[in-house]
Amino acid sequence: MVSAPFGRVVVCGVGLIGGSFALALKRQGLVREVVGLGRSRASLEEALSLGIIDSISEGWADALRAADLVLLAMPVGSMTAAMEAMAPHLEPQTLVTDAGSTKRDIVEGIYTHLRAHLDRIVPAHPIAGAERSGASAATADLYQGRKVVLTPLVENSAEALARVREAWGACGAELSEMSPQEHDRVFAAVSHLPHLLAFALVHDIAERANSDELFSFAASGFRDFSRIASSHPEMWRDICIANRHALQAELDTYLSELAWIRALLAQGDGPALEKLFTDARDARNAWLAGHFKA
Amino acid sequence: MVSAPFGRVVVCGVGLIGGSFALALKRQGLVREVVGLGRSRASLEEALSLGIIDSISEGWADALRAADLVLLAMPVGSMTAAMEAMAPHLEPQTLVTDAGSTKRDIVEGIYTHLRAHLDRIVPAHPIAGAERSGASAATADLYQGRKVVLTPLVENSAEALARVREAWGACGAELSEMSPQEHDRVFAAVSHLPHLLAFALVHDIAERANSDELFSFAASGFRDFSRIASSHPEMWRDICIANRHALQAELDTYLSELAWIRALLAQGDGPALEKLFTDARDARNAWLAGHFKA
Repeated sequence: MVSAPFGRVVVCGVGLIGGSFALALKRQGLVREVVGLGRSRASLEEALSLGIIDSISEGWADALRAADLVLLAMPVGSMTAAMEAMAPHLEPQTLVTDAGSTKRDIVEGIYTHLRAHLDRIVPAHPIAGAERSGASAATADLYQGRKVVLTPLVENSAEALARVREAWGACGAELSEMSPQEHDRVFAAVSHLPHLLAFALVHDIAERANSDELFSFAASGFRDFSRIASSHPEMWRDICIANRHALQAELDTYLSELAWIRALLAQGDGPALEKLFTDARDARNAWLAGHFKA
Repeated sequence: MVSAPFGRVVVCGVGLIGGSFALALKRQGLVREVVGLGRSRASLEEALSLGIIDSISEGWADALRAADLVLLAMPVGSMTAAMEAMAPHLEPQTLVTDAGSTKRDIVEGIYTHLRAHLDRIVPAHPIAGAERSGASAATADLYQGRKVVLTPLVENSAEALARVREAWGACGAELSEMSPQEHDRVFAAVSHLPHLLAFALVHDIAERANSDELFSFAASGFRDFSRIASSHPEMWRDICIANRHALQAELDTYLSELAWIRALLAQGDGPALEKLFTDARDARNAWLAGHFKA
């Protein structure tokens, strides 16, 4: 698929996510010029020196002049303020997409602040969490083979949707589409809740009087279970707050599951526990076999 | 540390755990003869052909004749029955240790069935879970640098304790001692509860009408969080049942933690969530830095 290049692409928040998007478009020859903006001057300087962006913009008025595509790649909690700030300067030809891990709140922000531009704002969520962060961690192939979920607005024009799909597709991503509500329910279940549970367990143990003893006997099972509790606190605060309704619903379902398991323990019901463990193991192994192909 | 070798070592349950113990003693020249017994003839034949054991015993009467050391390495749920079966044949010079992941129930079994032998039965728990199982997975260095927790009985003789410490020490393990009660509380917190939580989440998702969709968007965070849900269902049934009192107490503490987090979500309390996540991340990273040295 050969696409017409974008002239000027604006990336707001040039860290791992935004920086990798810029590098991927550059590698594909799909962009003439990348302009970076963001809250940290040091990050922008670094991105500039690494060739991720071609110039640093002082603000939205400057950045959005003759822009073809904007990627919002800042933390979810800063998206709405960014939309408000960019609104007066957004030109009619400029496409907008984002990289937020939640979608309902972002769509709400779009309807509040960018109502005049609904035809060409196509929200997206690249599933590319990584241990590292920052511009220095960005790579052109971060999105290669990863999923990107688009949650198009009903007001999107077919051309805008096609162009934004082209941009993410050029990054090597596997694209899918769903509604913002469905997106938020799905990711509450398979991503946000596990993060919350891992943070909760580590916090629970760290608060004990004998936490040193407990940690000293924690082994590799604990290490892997809790890996996501080393995730970025601010980012996860934003995600949990933005998606708190779906996340609470998932948490409640999980609490019911735990209440049931607690009853099985209290009754000493070995066969029921073994069946539950077997079903879980089989489901996980089937998923693994299909999902993480060698 | 040079130790006098054991003449005849009996390993009951020649899988990963029992087989690796035998191989480690052999490598150290610390055993003349290893006798295997267990419920699966095929496993025993495999262990024999791999040189892990030197002979297969038909039963306890035969196995325990002139034995110096017995390792009980079958699933926790089978330990008590094994103790009952071996009791009539246990000779006065024979030391006994085990490799069970729980200790209170095993100590209870010892006091019930092996009361005449309390001076020389030293319960142990090697912290060496591995993805693989079976005799073919056994290696002489499985315990190298791993922790082994001993829970000596007050009735143990100093010589018996020293000899059992020598055996585990010769496997390369780092030894520590605690009471069976403390052992079970510690491992309920850092091992048994995380396993239960991982099994519960995968089961919860697998039961949904849209489980295929949910799994299709699960990524590497979910994979690592749920790795221990691929553990052996029968083994974990036994552990959960054997340690259900301590495990229920840990589960209740965790449920309180989740109730608190649920309230923070409901109130949209971003700062409190961020503090919780930061404390958890910092505690985990400090543990990781000290525990998994490069």
